[in-house]
Amino acid sequence: MSAGVTYARGFEAAAVAAGLKPSGRPDVALLVGAPGTVGAGLFTTNDVAAAPVTLSRAHLAAGGGRGVLVNSGQANAATGARGDRDAAAAVAAVAAGLDLDPTELLQCSTGVIGEPLHMDRLLGALPPLVAGLVDDGGADFAEAIMTTDTVSKQATADAGRFRVGGAGKGVGMIAPSLATMLAFVTTDAPIERRDLQGMARAHLSPHLESISVDGCTSTNDSVLLFASGAAGGPRLRPETDAWRRLAAAIEQVGASLASQLIHDGEGATHVMLVDLTGAADDRAARALAATVADSPLVKTALFGGDPNPGRILQALGTAGEGLDPETIDVWVGPTQLVHGGTIPPAYFEADALRGAAVAAMASPEVSIRIAVGDGPGTSRVLGCDLSYEYVRINGEYTT
Amino acid sequence: MSAGVTYARGFEAAAVAAGLKPSGRPDVALLVGAPGTVGAGLFTTNDVAAAPVTLSRAHLAAGGGRGVLVNSGQANAATGARGDRDAAAAVAAVAAGLDLDPTELLQCSTGVIGEPLHMDRLLGALPPLVAGLVDDGGADFAEAIMTTDTVSKQATADAGRFRVGGAGKGVGMIAPSLATMLAFVTTDAPIERRDLQGMARAHLSPHLESISVDGCTSTNDSVLLFASGAAGGPRLRPETDAWRRLAAAIEQVGASLASQLIHDGEGATHVMLVDLTGAADDRAARALAATVADSPLVKTALFGGDPNPGRILQALGTAGEGLDPETIDVWVGPTQLVHGGTIPPAYFEADALRGAAVAAMASPEVSIRIAVGDGPGTSRVLGCDLSYEYVRINGEYTT
Repeated sequence: MSAGVTYARGFEAAAVAAGLKPSGRPDVALLVGAPGTVGAGLFTTNDVAAAPVTLSRAHLAAGGGRGVLVNSGQANAATGARGDRDAAAAVAAVAAGLDLDPTELLQCSTGVIGEPLHMDRLLGALPPLVAGLVDDGGADFAEAIMTTDTVSKQATADAGRFRVGGAGKGVGMIAPSLATMLAFVTTDAPIERRDLQGMARAHLSPHLESISVDGCTSTNDSVLLFASGAAGGPRLRPETDAWRRLAAAIEQVGASLASQLIHDGEGATHVMLVDLTGAADDRAARALAATVADSPLVKTALFGGDPNPGRILQALGTAGEGLDPETIDVWVGPTQLVHGGTIPPAYFEADALRGAAVAAMASPEVSIRIAVGDGPGTSRVLGCDLSYEYVRINGEYTT
Repeated sequence: MSAGVTYARGFEAAAVAAGLKPSGRPDVALLVGAPGTVGAGLFTTNDVAAAPVTLSRAHLAAGGGRGVLVNSGQANAATGARGDRDAAAAVAAVAAGLDLDPTELLQCSTGVIGEPLHMDRLLGALPPLVAGLVDDGGADFAEAIMTTDTVSKQATADAGRFRVGGAGKGVGMIAPSLATMLAFVTTDAPIERRDLQGMARAHLSPHLESISVDGCTSTNDSVLLFASGAAGGPRLRPETDAWRRLAAAIEQVGASLASQLIHDGEGATHVMLVDLTGAADDRAARALAATVADSPLVKTALFGGDPNPGRILQALGTAGEGLDPETIDVWVGPTQLVHGGTIPPAYFEADALRGAAVAAMASPEVSIRIAVGDGPGTSRVLGCDLSYEYVRINGEYTT
């Protein structure tokens, strides 16, 4: 059965090995929707955005979004005017093969920053790529977008008679500078183009923006949502029951991809779920939770299996949110380790309090719950530990 | 010859082993100036400030600053009302021994967050500490404030007939949660109390705030500057020639301590000097340079000896300073690796360009120069690499 991005009807995908990656593994992928397919996109906030990000933003603004060309191997970032020309030429070649206007296609790249696209190899691989499009190409698509991912990531969900599917790759910047989180989600529900961006922002973004391996936003991060309408019927209108059911399915696919991405984070041996409540608003909650999830001291403590409530407090205090320490409670697993900003002295006496928290730290998914007051702001951020393997991947591989 | 904090005339110091540290090494230190000594302080910006930080701020505000009691072993942070009572009791005991008002003394602690001060041991050690004050106690003082520092840090400088001395400890949060950067600088120049804080902020803060091991601001960071006036003569007035000479000597001591601290950073094998120019103002320059110095991807690249200009660009783009990529130039050592936001394709062809940068990365102090436009803002931030040893220190030691 077709999976991933081709689970929803009205989509075809394909992949080839063009030789952009030294490994010789598949490295170019294509996803195209049936006529009438509309697209939406969320992109990196990095000031140094890659050429394909600039191209995709422009093509979406011009009304495009029928499909996307993806390559791994080179990120086509920090490549100057040459990078823009290369991105445009690759998309133009695919568009010609599909008899589309180039602006109908988007583009994503992931790989080495600064290295120019190997255009001769890429252009030579595009005709067989276009010729290979099939309605069960989702698995090939998911594999070709991998860099140092150890497994491919796909997810599917249903919303009544509508289907939702997705694929994602990477998390963390990967040696030697292989970067980027990419996620692609498709649905066969009929949605107006102008409504799709709202759906992506409200229901896809929160999950895929809640994960952090090392706090490093890449130059190429992109999340794309496509709707083919191939399931038929009238266009869904926002905030109807059918819309909400579809939104729930899209959230389910987004949450699954986010979880798969963080579990495959560079060198990760444990994942932490940082749930923060009581902040002034959701933005403050997210900033606080992310500061904990990104703290190298919390991350090394997670690696070492040490609950270390002092490091969690230390991290919270540096978020710049003006916390009153006396409002802070922290739980590791089921055990409360901070009461109103104070760590119980019993914690340091090797008793049951510490033992229960240490046991919770042994779980593959460690829950860290934090309350900082009685405000309405909440957030969940998924993080992972900082291990020897992270240092090895990012430090030793210097080619 | 007397060194460190007792190099300047009019200061006495002492240290004892109270048993606050499991190692049994000296862990309580005292520095006291002659009558008329004035003090100034700069403290952590962490919202979760430790009890001794709160006490020192209050005592400085009340006109105090004759001396400082320092302990390692427990940070006395996240200890609630008990922590405040313990800090006040320790300072009161020392003040009684010296026949001073308690508000004349400041306090610093460094060690485990959350664990209460071992008050019985600390109080028992204070009488011999007070009795042991000598005018060549600087080296003992510098040793007793160490936690997992591998060497003690002292510095001295002269400004005409005035002397300046200093001691510092730590950098990075140190397992199991041993925290804190502390620095103490003394001078025998006569300075009005109201002018001393300005001297500290203008001439001591920039150096000691320019270092980052892991971007983790501790709950206890404190920088104190004391002036005894023991060299005699009229009070120095700001912005006179004598003031500027003294400021230069204080800067020299601050820069030396900062350099010693970063070279002894947790697991550090290489130091990077990130010099940033062309930003809108110094604040923006500092934010950009710190984002590079704190990036785990730049830090692991430094560990691996990989110049990796793509990671430097990626980090700059996440600082939130709205950079125009086309304005960015980057040099590693003497070699320019980024021109107007673009990495030369030649960099990826294993030629002399890359080789020269790789050679520069082998230096114990690696220069990374970044220009981001033609604004007046400049900053230097000192960072270090992220090594296996950092993960070991912070992850494996879980006691």
